[in-house]
Amino acid sequence: MSPVSFDLASVLDDYQGEELTIATACSHTSLQIFNGAKREGLKTIGLAVGQEPRHYDAFPLAKPDEFLVADTWPEIADMADELVERNAIIVPHGSFVEYMGAQNYAQMPVPMFGNRHVLDWESNRNKERTWLQEAGLRVPPVLDDPRDIVRPVIVKYHGAKGGSGFFIATSYPEFLQKIDENVGDSEYHIQEFTLGTRYYMHYFYSPLSAEGYQVNDGNLQMLSVDRRDETTIDEAHRLGSIRELEHMGVRPSFVVTGNVPMVLRESLLPKVMQMGADVVDYAYENFGGLWGPFCLETVITDDLEFTVFEISARIVAGTNPFITSSPYADYVDPGMSTGVRVAREIKRAQKDKELDKILS
Amino acid sequence: MSPVSFDLASVLDDYQGEELTIATACSHTSLQIFNGAKREGLKTIGLAVGQEPRHYDAFPLAKPDEFLVADTWPEIADMADELVERNAIIVPHGSFVEYMGAQNYAQMPVPMFGNRHVLDWESNRNKERTWLQEAGLRVPPVLDDPRDIVRPVIVKYHGAKGGSGFFIATSYPEFLQKIDENVGDSEYHIQEFTLGTRYYMHYFYSPLSAEGYQVNDGNLQMLSVDRRDETTIDEAHRLGSIRELEHMGVRPSFVVTGNVPMVLRESLLPKVMQMGADVVDYAYENFGGLWGPFCLETVITDDLEFTVFEISARIVAGTNPFITSSPYADYVDPGMSTGVRVAREIKRAQKDKELDKILS
Amino acid sequence: MSPVSFDLASVLDDYQGEELTIATACSHTSLQIFNGAKREGLKTIGLAVGQEPRHYDAFPLAKPDEFLVADTWPEIADMADELVERNAIIVPHGSFVEYMGAQNYAQMPVPMFGNRHVLDWESNRNKERTWLQEAGLRVPPVLDDPRDIVRPVIVKYHGAKGGSGFFIATSYPEFLQKIDENVGDSEYHIQEFTLGTRYYMHYFYSPLSAEGYQVNDGNLQMLSVDRRDETTIDEAHRLGSIRELEHMGVRPSFVVTGNVPMVLRESLLPKVMQMGADVVDYAYENFGGLWGPFCLETVITDDLEFTVFEISARIVAGTNPFITSSPYADYVDPGMSTGVRVAREIKRAQKDKELDKILS
Repeated sequence: MSPVSFDLASVLDDYQGEELTIATACSHTSLQIFNGAKREGLKTIGLAVGQEPRHYDAFPLAKPDEFLVADTWPEIADMADELVERNAIIVPHGSFVEYMGAQNYAQMPVPMFGNRHVLDWESNRNKERTWLQEAGLRVPPVLDDPRDIVRPVIVKYHGAKGGSGFFIATSYPEFLQKIDENVGDSEYHIQEFTLGTRYYMHYFYSPLSAEGYQVNDGNLQMLSVDRRDETTIDEAHRLGSIRELEHMGVRPSFVVTGNVPMVLRESLLPKVMQMGADVVDYAYENFGGLWGPFCLETVITDDLEFTVFEISARIVAGTNPFITSSPYADYVDPGMSTGVRVAREIKRAQKDKELDKILS
Repeated sequence: MSPVSFDLASVLDDYQGEELTIATACSHTSLQIFNGAKREGLKTIGLAVGQEPRHYDAFPLAKPDEFLVADTWPEIADMADELVERNAIIVPHGSFVEYMGAQNYAQMPVPMFGNRHVLDWESNRNKERTWLQEAGLRVPPVLDDPRDIVRPVIVKYHGAKGGSGFFIATSYPEFLQKIDENVGDSEYHIQEFTLGTRYYMHYFYSPLSAEGYQVNDGNLQMLSVDRRDETTIDEAHRLGSIRELEHMGVRPSFVVTGNVPMVLRESLLPKVMQMGADVVDYAYENFGGLWGPFCLETVITDDLEFTVFEISARIVAGTNPFITSSPYADYVDPGMSTGVRVAREIKRAQKDKELDKILS
Repeated sequence: MSPVSFDLASVLDDYQGEELTIATACSHTSLQIFNGAKREGLKTIGLAVGQEPRHYDAFPLAKPDEFLVADTWPEIADMADELVERNAIIVPHGSFVEYMGAQNYAQMPVPMFGNRHVLDWESNRNKERTWLQEAGLRVPPVLDDPRDIVRPVIVKYHGAKGGSGFFIATSYPEFLQKIDENVGDSEYHIQEFTLGTRYYMHYFYSPLSAEGYQVNDGNLQMLSVDRRDETTIDEAHRLGSIRELEHMGVRPSFVVTGNVPMVLRESLLPKVMQMGADVVDYAYENFGGLWGPFCLETVITDDLEFTVFEISARIVAGTNPFITSSPYADYVDPGMSTGVRVAREIKRAQKDKELDKILS
């Protein structure tokens, strides 16, 4: 992807000393992001398509001050000037990137919170795997050839949204029976199914201060933990086992519908912090860094080891249960959500004239 | 059911300017209702049978100021005068209605928070279905004849308490094998089993102000989301699949034992608010309205659509996890429980001399 | 186990009027214990082996003021003098007892919060069973002879850490196939598998005041409820039923990896408080009492009865989701964690010169 070509430094010069505005797409974690910004006294803009969303009226403390509405998501990119005029900083989330398209996102000439180069690493399964593996984390084995399937695997289509096409297979014949005929060899990804309990850890890395759990010249926090809730797989057992369901002509899907708050066995926390530090270190060594909120998506196996199946390099929806209370953030700053944490980082950077360290 | 025949208007005249008391049956959501009333400075009465319940001593901020104890639940109706003397308003919950009996409940000459006529619609499966369907919500298909079973269905007995007799069948022979022989044709209800993740959304509709998410002349809020936890179905998979359990002679039950806090995928919220608005609209058009707390009990299928399998027209136990923190209520008024929301509605109505708009 | 032989009374005399310090092992519930002590203004010491743990830097409000580091856990016992010098009180948790070894724990000459004699009863499956049963609680039937297996059972090895070796069997042949050949007849325990939803209730008993829910001369609280999350059993259904997994060569394990917050059906609370009272009463009648935090680990069957499969006589990790908000503690004292509750108990005892009533 070609890098963004606007003059960030000059834009940030103009932002210095001005009232800042937090902008994001009206979905995913936007209630939390707007609420965090408002609690910290920043202005807020909701980006939407079609028409102004009405449902924010039901959540007044999370309703943006203003909406900017385009006809389609890619056209949001044309609003760059309007955003910069309002001293806007975009706080990206998964849906923002997906709706805009990676290319439009990467090139949008508005300051973004976080390192936008990380997208290259995170959206490409091979590079993501390299990142996690070279950072020393355990990743699920992948199979290049479906004929090698001898243990349960999960087959993921590239670009599949939300897991609806994913399937489990335990043999090559089962793979053949389930694979979408219209999909080419390079359009899927076969991963060994790692059996265990899933934990999604929500980190925040700040390059602004080394006080706390120091990593590089900054500090790392772990603010909350959730488990994703996926339809239909997470309640399929109410009707029967996967094999029984298949006999009824039903194949479970992996579409995320919500999140459940969790806490981790405390003895795993040293490992959790180390894993977070390792992916941050790798990012600084290889592509300019990783800061702000990020998430490791893991399975804990019965030897109490983490297998990491994905990294999300920005705020994840799993932080949404934790708006005024999180069993981890409450050891850092009681009542602080990830949305508040983001707003505080931006305010501090502006105050210390270091906006260039956290925006890209 | 014959409507209540007492002179509500004259009772409410007497209540105006007096110290109000919140009364409810000592079960279900009573801790939350009493706590909400106490936090808002209202007096509280616990209705009980047999003897004063002791367990409130362990929860001092949720212990009612006074208990009224009868020998049996229907005899609570005889305490109407004592309740009215104390300027009592009953905040009904599911167990209150069940314990008292629908007829006694409907005719009790004490002001009730909410529209007591809604019970006719909610307690009759056909009328409930009409309500949801005509409001535009997707409901699970029902089968009139068990010989039509070709896909998994759930069979529910009428009046079954808490789901203990419910069962799943996938064919007519299986239905015959499982149906209770002593049950007549009109005493069960066959619903297609909708596979997906369950979400129970807790709404609050106020006719007192249109500020916020306006519906009719009032406003609608969504304060929290939970999932019901049902024994034995929700942990049956620890022992085996449903079919494997049947081979062991065990049939899973659907008895509610608790609740788990959840959050929903944010992109579903516009739909959630619209569904709430639609059932309120229908209620005002057809039977005088629906206000106060209510709940839609849904399954999200893998096309990200809601199937609504039930509506509860009053406070549900799923609000119990959210006493001083809810990821949704905290965007409305941090720390507000549904119990607090109820108490505030009553206080506001009294202050504005509109008690008649929220009591029946 | 031989009892501790130090002169507790004289140590406590020295503690009276001094600044107290809370000490515990750096694992399990230590973040919560340290945070609770700090919120209450007490000093804190973290006990660790090898080196100072780094991860507390990420949780500043739960980081102990000081670490004492030994080479091995049993050597922590040698630090008794240093601990007493600092007016330390040990708040034990499950990992502390396990790491130190029961004998070292029982004999460590430092004041412990709670009754250290309870360990004899809790760590011996037969005595634990006697305790629960004679207190009137329903316990799962045990089988003396594996040849008697006709219904599903769970087989637990003695001293197995965290449930990794546990297995389910439904017949004697299946038992023979699964039992570890190297394990003697007296080294396992066969319990009927009780099907139902699991609830872990977290109590606190204080002998210092009878105000509240009185039991003996003290009062009993119930501060929160969780469900343990166990790998791989709790997500095994994503891959298939237990029997299907066995065909793939996979046997589910029962290793605790975290905790999920829950609430209980309110109508069960009278029974919950009664069960707590009954185990406390039995403890006072038979071995000097049970005070401080404890937990009943239960299954609710479809007749809405509790089967109690274990008691933990000290703080459990299931309290970890509840640091600044619990739907039950918030009815007692909003924002109070079990860690805070412990610290307050110690402060009150010191103020009232009753440290001897809560330390052993």
